[in-house]
Amino acid sequence: MNDSRDFCLQFTVRDYECDMQGIVNNAVYQNYLEHARHEYLKSRGLDFAALTAQGIDVMVIRAELDYRRALRSADQFEVSVGVERQSRLRLRFRQRIIRQPDAQLILDAVFICAAVGGDGRPFFPAQLAVLLEEDS
Amino acid sequence: MNDSRDFCLQFTVRDYECDMQGIVNNAVYQNYLEHARHEYLKSRGLDFAALTAQGIDVMVIRAELDYRRALRSADQFEVSVGVERQSRLRLRFRQRIIRQPDAQLILDAVFICAAVGGDGRPFFPAQLAVLLEEDS
Amino acid sequence: MNDSRDFCLQFTVRDYECDMQGIVNNAVYQNYLEHARHEYLKSRGLDFAALTAQGIDVMVIRAELDYRRALRSADQFEVSVGVERQSRLRLRFRQRIIRQPDAQLILDAVFICAAVGGDGRPFFPAQLAVLLEEDS
Amino acid sequence: MNDSRDFCLQFTVRDYECDMQGIVNNAVYQNYLEHARHEYLKSRGLDFAALTAQGIDVMVIRAELDYRRALRSADQFEVSVGVERQSRLRLRFRQRIIRQPDAQLILDAVFICAAVGGDGRPFFPAQLAVLLEEDS
Repeated sequence: MNDSRDFCLQFTVRDYECDMQGIVNNAVYQNYLEHARHEYLKSRGLDFAALTAQGIDVMVIRAELDYRRALRSADQFEVSVGVERQSRLRLRFRQRIIRQPDAQLILDAVFICAAVGGDGRPFFPAQLAVLLEEDS
Repeated sequence: MNDSRDFCLQFTVRDYECDMQGIVNNAVYQNYLEHARHEYLKSRGLDFAALTAQGIDVMVIRAELDYRRALRSADQFEVSVGVERQSRLRLRFRQRIIRQPDAQLILDAVFICAAVGGDGRPFFPAQLAVLLEEDS
Repeated sequence: MNDSRDFCLQFTVRDYECDMQGIVNNAVYQNYLEHARHEYLKSRGLDFAALTAQGIDVMVIRAELDYRRALRSADQFEVSVGVERQSRLRLRFRQRIIRQPDAQLILDAVFICAAVGGDGRPFFPAQLAVLLEEDS
Repeated sequence: MNDSRDFCLQFTVRDYECDMQGIVNNAVYQNYLEHARHEYLKSRGLDFAALTAQGIDVMVIRAELDYRRALRSADQFEVSVGVERQSRLRLRFRQRIIRQPDAQLILDAVFICAAVGGDGRPFFPAQLAVLLEEDS
């Protein structure tokens, strides 16, 4: 189960996301996961597009994806997002894809992210600190 | 450097692969890596589409991607593929993306793969054994 | 305005769909339009994936897309679908993308489709006749 | 046949570009066509990414695509690009996709393009005039 405090976003598989095996192509899961992370940021008052426009590039530096089962055409699923501090400059996103309504685990993932400023140097933007506060 | 025995495939970044940060989107690297794996299979006499048509689904069960630097519009790069046996039923692909001509490491990746037959059961198809033979 | 009898589907732009101009890439609109057509088929009791599995390939033979304005990150929009008979063997889908909530027209499109059976020959599957019946 | 003066670019279908019908998805042809147009621009000394960075957005305002045959996994093909002036502010690109080596016509397309400057107004950038000069 997803941690009850985690952010969750609902999706439905679109046919163009399936490949010739009739299942969602591996790369497409990264699209789902990225979209859920960006929506999670918005839910905490952060906008990825606005950060980019301000010269703050939040970047994935490592991804680990464990593919458990495949999604197929029209499958409904939710993507969860949890976050914690990995190190002084790095955030660690934990994500899961859970098929609905049968709650089958489809994919487990971890994304390590860091931010780079306009000068190309890594830093921890003050804006991201909000992600590490306890939910009230 | 890529191991000199590894298979390598040349690519050029296409503009539609770049996102609003002006860099190749994270998910697109999985496309590059998959295409290189499939071309590697072909170089060893195996065809992914033909395997799929025969009811043999070769699937990624875990991916680890270390993003070192970003590729940008028109960048040229090569993707290497090496393979070894991970366990009785699993193959381990090691892949690298190296920008050209400056040989900068862009991405390091590992893909653990397994095959499932028409009955939905994992097995190690005889066809894949050729991948584990020494190159002559 | 969309014809009030037309099928409509709601979408939100995802960041990975935007290109380095910061707008939705031209090809992505075809994804939106295809997904809306397939959902429209489902709303009429037809399933594109099931038709494909039965050996009936419904194919686009001509597309006309008039791009009026660009969609950007997080924009909400609806895609409408209307259909009529183009000729004995062909269907004509009329589609529009309308941004919400300001009702700005983003794109007008026409898709001419035909079906091919397992023998590779064009035919008009009985299943598609339901699309041409009047809504009650 | 493509006009012998037209620019041509060679491609090979990648498996991730095929959908559950086992053929290249309709939207992917727009990717191929865009990439060929951008490479054509480069061959004439123009860089799409650089134009975008200068605040000149060259945009497709109408696309017409006639899908004649489908491409499949591993098919090789060339994409041609020809250009002419459509009106004072608009360019008309004619493009074809031809499968190799059997020269089967896969797709015929027309793209009408216009440029918008930093002020959001359409104009005809001096840079594009080079496209309309006769080849020597």
